[in-house]
Amino acid sequence: MYRTHTCGELRTGDIGKQVSLAGWVQYFRQKGAVSWIVLRDRYGYTQVVFEEGRSKPELLEALKKIGREDVLQIQGEVIERYSKNKELPTGDIEILADSMVVLNHSATPPFTIEEESDGGDDLRMKYRYLDLRRPPLRRNLELRYRVSRAAREYLDAQGFFEIETPFLIRSTPEGARDFVVPSRMNPGQFYALPQSPQTFKQLLMVSGYDRYFQVVKCFRDEDLRADRQPEFTQIDCEMAFVEQEDVLRIFEGLFKDIFKKIRGLELKEDFPRISWEEAMRHYGNDKPDIRFGMKLCNLKVEGHYEAPILSSLAFKVLEEAPSILAIRVEGGASWTRKQLDELTDWVKRPQIGMSGLLHLRHNPDGSFKSSADKFLTQEVCAELGNHCSLQAGDLLLMLAGPDARTRKAASELRLHLGNMLGLRKPDEFAPLWVVDFPLLEQTDDGHWTALHHPFTAPKPEHALFLNQPEHFGKIRANAYDIVLNGTEIGGGSIRIHERGMQEAMFAALGMSREEAQEQFGFLLGAFEYGAPPHGGIAFGFDRLCALLGGQEGIRDFIAFPKNNAGRDVMLDAPAGISPEQKKELGL
Amino acid sequence: MYRTHTCGELRTGDIGKQVSLAGWVQYFRQKGAVSWIVLRDRYGYTQVVFEEGRSKPELLEALKKIGREDVLQIQGEVIERYSKNKELPTGDIEILADSMVVLNHSATPPFTIEEESDGGDDLRMKYRYLDLRRPPLRRNLELRYRVSRAAREYLDAQGFFEIETPFLIRSTPEGARDFVVPSRMNPGQFYALPQSPQTFKQLLMVSGYDRYFQVVKCFRDEDLRADRQPEFTQIDCEMAFVEQEDVLRIFEGLFKDIFKKIRGLELKEDFPRISWEEAMRHYGNDKPDIRFGMKLCNLKVEGHYEAPILSSLAFKVLEEAPSILAIRVEGGASWTRKQLDELTDWVKRPQIGMSGLLHLRHNPDGSFKSSADKFLTQEVCAELGNHCSLQAGDLLLMLAGPDARTRKAASELRLHLGNMLGLRKPDEFAPLWVVDFPLLEQTDDGHWTALHHPFTAPKPEHALFLNQPEHFGKIRANAYDIVLNGTEIGGGSIRIHERGMQEAMFAALGMSREEAQEQFGFLLGAFEYGAPPHGGIAFGFDRLCALLGGQEGIRDFIAFPKNNAGRDVMLDAPAGISPEQKKELGL
Repeated sequence: MYRTHTCGELRTGDIGKQVSLAGWVQYFRQKGAVSWIVLRDRYGYTQVVFEEGRSKPELLEALKKIGREDVLQIQGEVIERYSKNKELPTGDIEILADSMVVLNHSATPPFTIEEESDGGDDLRMKYRYLDLRRPPLRRNLELRYRVSRAAREYLDAQGFFEIETPFLIRSTPEGARDFVVPSRMNPGQFYALPQSPQTFKQLLMVSGYDRYFQVVKCFRDEDLRADRQPEFTQIDCEMAFVEQEDVLRIFEGLFKDIFKKIRGLELKEDFPRISWEEAMRHYGNDKPDIRFGMKLCNLKVEGHYEAPILSSLAFKVLEEAPSILAIRVEGGASWTRKQLDELTDWVKRPQIGMSGLLHLRHNPDGSFKSSADKFLTQEVCAELGNHCSLQAGDLLLMLAGPDARTRKAASELRLHLGNMLGLRKPDEFAPLWVVDFPLLEQTDDGHWTALHHPFTAPKPEHALFLNQPEHFGKIRANAYDIVLNGTEIGGGSIRIHERGMQEAMFAALGMSREEAQEQFGFLLGAFEYGAPPHGGIAFGFDRLCALLGGQEGIRDFIAFPKNNAGRDVMLDAPAGISPEQKKELGL
Repeated sequence: MYRTHTCGELRTGDIGKQVSLAGWVQYFRQKGAVSWIVLRDRYGYTQVVFEEGRSKPELLEALKKIGREDVLQIQGEVIERYSKNKELPTGDIEILADSMVVLNHSATPPFTIEEESDGGDDLRMKYRYLDLRRPPLRRNLELRYRVSRAAREYLDAQGFFEIETPFLIRSTPEGARDFVVPSRMNPGQFYALPQSPQTFKQLLMVSGYDRYFQVVKCFRDEDLRADRQPEFTQIDCEMAFVEQEDVLRIFEGLFKDIFKKIRGLELKEDFPRISWEEAMRHYGNDKPDIRFGMKLCNLKVEGHYEAPILSSLAFKVLEEAPSILAIRVEGGASWTRKQLDELTDWVKRPQIGMSGLLHLRHNPDGSFKSSADKFLTQEVCAELGNHCSLQAGDLLLMLAGPDARTRKAASELRLHLGNMLGLRKPDEFAPLWVVDFPLLEQTDDGHWTALHHPFTAPKPEHALFLNQPEHFGKIRANAYDIVLNGTEIGGGSIRIHERGMQEAMFAALGMSREEAQEQFGFLLGAFEYGAPPHGGIAFGFDRLCALLGGQEGIRDFIAFPKNNAGRDVMLDAPAGISPEQKKELGL
């Protein structure tokens, strides 16, 4: 036994005890005849003291060779500390060292192991095992564990079973790109790593397991954007004999439970629910951040004037734009010219791609002042102001252009303004459900793809449209996303459970009968043997943890993440394999 | 909402209630004017009744189209059952159906969905989603979930954190064959799937996480033997600042907890501990089944006579055999010639490979009768009997031959006798620790390999031998296996935590300094920055569940297993991938 206590454990009640501790040297200090070491472990910090006259000479001699991050075993007596440290739970005591064993020395770490490190990203990734010693990362991984535990407890209490599904499965060309695994025993053939356990959890419903969950790794071979990982973790759930309402109720409960256990927040109200259409209209995207208002004001949409006054203007920019969207900034009439110029530059950046930003000040005296006074008369401004609930002292920002681009730009501008105005507080949590998603969306080349995935059921009243391509765009699904602070953290749907409907869905997606049978024959087959109605949801666990930790990036909530090029810098993976390995695999 | 209650829930206290149930038709019966359906879901069975005069005519009409495994929603009143079924928790009530909705029809299943199915292995694998409906499989997966939950609860209470480690890692030629994953973004390079999170959990100890666990999938591309799976689940654990005793104590506690929660067994005694050498000597293998005695009696070992009387015999068979091992069969003197002939044939099978079986009866009258009376005189027999504690009425079976083969044969014979005599009861649990394993073992070509893995530390007093190849065979490790009923269900060790010792270990295994640096540079590096002493253990979760379920095979404790050729018959995986996929991956 290396220790009798951890470094976070001793209190004044322990004074007089002989103890052993083991841990790392957090720091070392000497002042005259007295030396102190602060010893660290996962549980805390404890000060150890050495003093000429009180400590053995050989101990004082040995101290000279001690450096930061050395691993020590200390034995000694717990004594009362002379100058107490109120910041530390163990700050009232210290250990008068009687013996010290160096369990291992440490070279000087390549960066400081503190709250904030001086190490660059690449260096910290390479020495991940040292970065993981820093308190913020330790807190993140501990939070992650506590979230998984809270989720498991809740789901268990609700009668869910965790069931493991396979990792070596079959590749399907649907959706994102698969990672594949060559089979040595079946030369020329490949397994695929699952992008999600979707079809397996549906089969488990067919098998009668009723309520399934799994905290599970999934894999997607995508071109990595910042903060995407090729392997990620989902909390994956499915229920039989449910309608949308049942699913939302159960998982809203899960979130309330997690918020309470992890953040101490009691979310008493039901989560707001808005339709996909409303979300697009009022926020410009399907994952609105509702911590703040500033909904989009729709002046013109797809060529239709919602503010009729605009139709009478001979203002070419607005006439030619299919969409005109505005955002009201409360009290923004006082914004300076410089501020507005900066915003204009911001929307003109290629990532946003707008040609300009119109603005309209509603001065405190009731008058209006716009950036296009020639066209926007006081009367027009008053009418627009009225349409967008503008008050004296407010500012209206207007974007005009093609439908999709303008809506996206307005959405981005809204979030940008939210950031500027400090309205997106990391410790505020505003979850909501977005419901009634379209089943299908059309790609640029005219094909239809599934907005969620090909197993999502249309709303019963739209089921017939699945055989009517001219109505594909109208089909809505009992599909739902849970959105937190502008981030989609989960999504699901009621699934198709009838072979005929699943075949119609595959056909709508352009799959031939043979392709459908080849790739999903097992599922179509399962639907013939008494498949119950079912539905479910899956949560992005990495991102959920990051949000609960008040951060945007997921990387520091994963013990050993890949970098943005999909590499593990510490392992130097991926890497070459031996010619023998390749030969065995027939590559 | 499809149901107000599950099929396992209603009791006499519910009589008079209007309820909805949903589930599968387990069976259908008609007798005169009355029809019954037994509806099934995960939670149980409930009988539904229809009766001419009491039920609507259209309901009776609809009944004609109902078959087994159809999915129904039933509404009706809970009534008292006329002839109660004491076997069923719901057997006192039934539902008088008021309405019936067919949620889905079922084709006739290809095999019966009962306790015992009439389906063959291949058919049941292909229609796994139907096989999973059978009660034994449902019980197995439920047991599996409960074991994982019990383990997580115990480990949490002991301060362990679950931390996820990566699946896309680097291939190392050490140990078994890796499954590899070609990287599209790094053409010509490959990730590997982990055979275990071994190095990651050690890094987490270096990072100060102190107590780690993970229930995790691992992968091994081996030629499959019966009941091996290419992907399998481990409960993987590691602790810092521990000695072997600390690890055994914590995980003995885990097992006691699991036995109690899952099987209701209070294992009060400490688990027996025997050294690897004792295990080999007394049982002929390192995973002894100690539910029964019949230890091996060592008469001659590696040319050395332990029963000196044998050295004086001019009996060529025994003279030439380096090893002679015996098993005492209590009361076996009465075994017939036929029985002994069958045993002789059994040891002569190629899988056992012995040339014969000597036997020696100690008759009730005190005399001896052996199968080689010419050499084994009464005096010799008495001496041998004495050496092996033979009593009047017992039988001694003797094997003679080369060391390793004879020991293995004796081990197999002992288990065979245990089976014959009904001494290996599936509902009896006899766990033990096997300790003091050799660190290294020599292969036929003279190389040394790690018995556990290259990260296992030698016992401190043997550390110096790591630089002395002539002593490699003597090095013992603080390595331990936990064995249950003749199966190794877990193993671990105290690890190396110093760079120098790890380098010496790699060198002993024949790795060059460059190879070691290339493959394990990250670990060697980590050992330079204050690596604490640490150790751990990993359990084979699939097999543990099977044993707790009283079964030998693991396949029916896995929701979607592969067959013995590594194929998923249901998905038909592995399979070909498209030429585009291959091209993208540079294959």
